[in-house]
Amino acid sequence: MNTQSRILRLASAVAACVLVSPSAFAQGLDVPARTLPVPQSVSPQEQKLIAAPLRPGWNVLPKTGEEWKPVADAGAEAIIKGVPGLIERMNVKVEKSTIDGVRVFIVTPATIAPANQNRVLIHMHGGCYVLNPREAALPEAVMMAGFGGFKVIAVDYRMPPEAYFPAALDDGMTVYKSVLKTTNAKNIGIIGTSAGGALVLEMGLRAKQLGLPMLGAIAAGTPMSDVTKVGDTFYTNELVDNVLVSRDGFCDAGTVVYAAGHDLKDPLLSPVYGDFTGFAPTILTSGTRDLLLSNTVRVHRKLRDAGIEAFLQVFEGMSHAHYLRDDTSPETKAAFAEISGFFGKHLGQ
Amino acid sequence: MNTQSRILRLASAVAACVLVSPSAFAQGLDVPARTLPVPQSVSPQEQKLIAAPLRPGWNVLPKTGEEWKPVADAGAEAIIKGVPGLIERMNVKVEKSTIDGVRVFIVTPATIAPANQNRVLIHMHGGCYVLNPREAALPEAVMMAGFGGFKVIAVDYRMPPEAYFPAALDDGMTVYKSVLKTTNAKNIGIIGTSAGGALVLEMGLRAKQLGLPMLGAIAAGTPMSDVTKVGDTFYTNELVDNVLVSRDGFCDAGTVVYAAGHDLKDPLLSPVYGDFTGFAPTILTSGTRDLLLSNTVRVHRKLRDAGIEAFLQVFEGMSHAHYLRDDTSPETKAAFAEISGFFGKHLGQ
Repeated sequence: MNTQSRILRLASAVAACVLVSPSAFAQGLDVPARTLPVPQSVSPQEQKLIAAPLRPGWNVLPKTGEEWKPVADAGAEAIIKGVPGLIERMNVKVEKSTIDGVRVFIVTPATIAPANQNRVLIHMHGGCYVLNPREAALPEAVMMAGFGGFKVIAVDYRMPPEAYFPAALDDGMTVYKSVLKTTNAKNIGIIGTSAGGALVLEMGLRAKQLGLPMLGAIAAGTPMSDVTKVGDTFYTNELVDNVLVSRDGFCDAGTVVYAAGHDLKDPLLSPVYGDFTGFAPTILTSGTRDLLLSNTVRVHRKLRDAGIEAFLQVFEGMSHAHYLRDDTSPETKAAFAEISGFFGKHLGQ
Repeated sequence: MNTQSRILRLASAVAACVLVSPSAFAQGLDVPARTLPVPQSVSPQEQKLIAAPLRPGWNVLPKTGEEWKPVADAGAEAIIKGVPGLIERMNVKVEKSTIDGVRVFIVTPATIAPANQNRVLIHMHGGCYVLNPREAALPEAVMMAGFGGFKVIAVDYRMPPEAYFPAALDDGMTVYKSVLKTTNAKNIGIIGTSAGGALVLEMGLRAKQLGLPMLGAIAAGTPMSDVTKVGDTFYTNELVDNVLVSRDGFCDAGTVVYAAGHDLKDPLLSPVYGDFTGFAPTILTSGTRDLLLSNTVRVHRKLRDAGIEAFLQVFEGMSHAHYLRDDTSPETKAAFAEISGFFGKHLGQ
């Protein structure tokens, strides 16, 4: 082909690209198989997390609370082994307690930042509403207390088979109501990731339903904000996210057990469908490989459309909640620095 | 299998998942072929854009400025056809002019918002440094003027084969320096998408190099902030983004022609490698299917790590710069509302 005809071919190819006829609309986009390299644009710690294989057992799907219990216990045992070291590195103190009958851990940093003296954070752990009982609830709360210099109350809420929807939410609200007796709502923040990220959004919505004062600020990490399997990254990041792996995996199965037949589209299970008018300032965290990236950005959009202060941070290459997996990682430190700064800016003193 | 042994199998599967031996680290993640449905979580307008086939000619790769020219002309012709209607819907006036020898369009909305009377935005168009000459440079500038009520100077900067790196950047800086004669730097914002998103970041970095005052605020849409092919979504969103399609596609080819042998890692071509100390407040826009989502979030992280006000918005399901394709789309309106609000908050008056 001579230069002239090559140029004409190029020109017509590009001219064609702006004309899309309706009949060309496909029902879906076929994407071929590919191998994704470990990106060089993240820290060595995050590279290690990205290079890990898909979570073993991601497609093992217990069907009842009784079936989940030993799964949760086994998983918790492994996590709890790492907790003492984390507590030491973060230089915090942990006391087991109850608040109005709800099991909690009070996590106190060696030094509470001066601005945080009259502030309290409530932490709701993740784990698909069925995992991370007892001290396995602690890692995010310990990191938040340590990195941010906040007092944190970690809620070890009831889960199947002990109790079902809305038990976890109720336990969170019980603690919030108790803290409200001694602390201004604007000085109270709540933080959680995954199911915990959904629970803190649900708590904000529930506070509105109950006529309670709105919290000061909320940190929702990669929230399970839509458990009806709606959301584009449920598809684009399927088998790319090495933690959750698939919308049809273990986490969905756990949520269905917790919901116990309740409508999954209820904003108290899928908070993206809630009314965010008057909601608290909210910081959202996700990653580019996160199966719940859509769940995260959709909540961000809804909050902004409701006129709410809402800050989104998305980490390069991260699958679901990688930022909770290695407290030495620069990405983890950056995530908690943003969250601490956001609480610092928006909570009352 | 009885219930007891099923439970034990589940428990051991989950227990195993927290133990990852270093030898298990793969060199890459194999992802099977899949069909991505059009998500229901976006507007009908955005569904139409998502359902469009991959950009025809995405893998046609002109190799010289002379080869790009007819491609750019043909593409521009198609875009320019839509400009009069857009100007009418946005209710703006467009005047062709030059500023110190640089070709520009002055875009003035029918009503300049009172707060914006002493503010000016400079617009740098996209198109891989080789596309969208003349009035094809206008769509984003017209939307910004119309949706935001700002006066916008759209720069029709020099491109190959007329001129090569750093001509586009130089033209932007010439306009900035001219506007500085009559307008406080803090009242000047710059906006651009794709190559334009990179150019506005490059302008901020160049202002520092030249000892010019820093701009008031910057809006960088899905910036080509790393043209060295580093970035995880170059891989995860390859053949998923229906606009750019691939890191080895037309856009990369255009940039290489513009760079004309200059080091692609120079922050004036890959601004993610720049020093953002003292940078302007910056708003960044991307989408979950965007090939440049990593390019976008990496700049966000760098800005935040440098202590800069930086706001990230990521739209559900969007490929590269879909928000410029349909001014009737709710997502487009939301994107420009955020950008207008950000300029409103950070620009001086």
